[in-house]
Amino acid sequence: MAQIEPIATLVANLAKLPGIGRKTAQRLAYHILSMPQDEVRQLAEAVWQAKKRTHACAVCGNYTDSDACDICRDATRDTAVICVVRDPRDVAAMERTHEYHGLYHVLGGTISPVDGIGPEQLRVRELMARLTSVGEVILATNPDIEGEATAAYLARLIKPMGIKVTRIAHGMPVGGDLEYTDEVTIARAMQGRREL
Amino acid sequence: MAQIEPIATLVANLAKLPGIGRKTAQRLAYHILSMPQDEVRQLAEAVWQAKKRTHACAVCGNYTDSDACDICRDATRDTAVICVVRDPRDVAAMERTHEYHGLYHVLGGTISPVDGIGPEQLRVRELMARLTSVGEVILATNPDIEGEATAAYLARLIKPMGIKVTRIAHGMPVGGDLEYTDEVTIARAMQGRREL
Repeated sequence: MAQIEPIATLVANLAKLPGIGRKTAQRLAYHILSMPQDEVRQLAEAVWQAKKRTHACAVCGNYTDSDACDICRDATRDTAVICVVRDPRDVAAMERTHEYHGLYHVLGGTISPVDGIGPEQLRVRELMARLTSVGEVILATNPDIEGEATAAYLARLIKPMGIKVTRIAHGMPVGGDLEYTDEVTIARAMQGRREL
Repeated sequence: MAQIEPIATLVANLAKLPGIGRKTAQRLAYHILSMPQDEVRQLAEAVWQAKKRTHACAVCGNYTDSDACDICRDATRDTAVICVVRDPRDVAAMERTHEYHGLYHVLGGTISPVDGIGPEQLRVRELMARLTSVGEVILATNPDIEGEATAAYLARLIKPMGIKVTRIAHGMPVGGDLEYTDEVTIARAMQGRREL
């Protein structure tokens, strides 16, 4: 016997989410059915409202529910530094460190010729327009092929403007184990060694 | 900087789901924000409709979107056998085997004195009312303390009515490994051994 339509539809929609397979989707669906009706309504509303009420910040591209995002409007942030990241989720990750107090620029992706994504598909023009009074651009795209290519591309574009361009360090993750770390990361950690 | 309210609310709601921690909730939330608006609407609708349109089958207690569930209305099912399970998700698990063709009865829980759940809180009276023309009741509650207690309770109640009462077998799970199987399960597998 097949599942009734409302449950089958819920399972199908949940199974589309990343990291959620068919079995987990089933388990979540039955859990949702067992929740009180107002909690389910809250969950459905939260999903819809998050999408409906957020959009890209006109300045940096981070998610916001107003014109400019909280970070761009925050007068205490250092406006002379811009940290360039791929996605809004990278802004959230960076903010969790509480170490960075400059601004951000979200590219909305990384250069990937095989996927047909070039600089025109990213928020590169918007970045260039922001560089008039900036002293440093930190390139914090991921240390993968696309992230490195994007960082190299932006460095070539920005350095001639006389702006300091930096790249986040590569090395051993804190708590990592040499034995289980790949050779490329270890090599990068050696190259980036610092005197104590 | 804290997350903006719509995203924080979504993360909080997702993190309430079983097996979804704070980090997974964050990841899912950002994925949902990156989805096309109509897909997000579909997901939110699926969550809400699944809850709104399903309710307990008046006969067996399984989820249904009509009066009686698909299984209770299916004229090809063997109405002389009732399989008693704890939850609707157990019905789904049982149906996936394609081995059972009788009816079900969903208790809606198992007897658990510490949680204040006795037979009155379960759909036991509804089960008794269904036993007038039944030849066998299969007790398929889980092989845990509450499931065993519930099965024992129901067996004591139903056997005096002259109805055959059976319990699903305990033993080694298929693909299991003796070395990694607990002693109680191995002991049950030995007790339940069959001649080849």
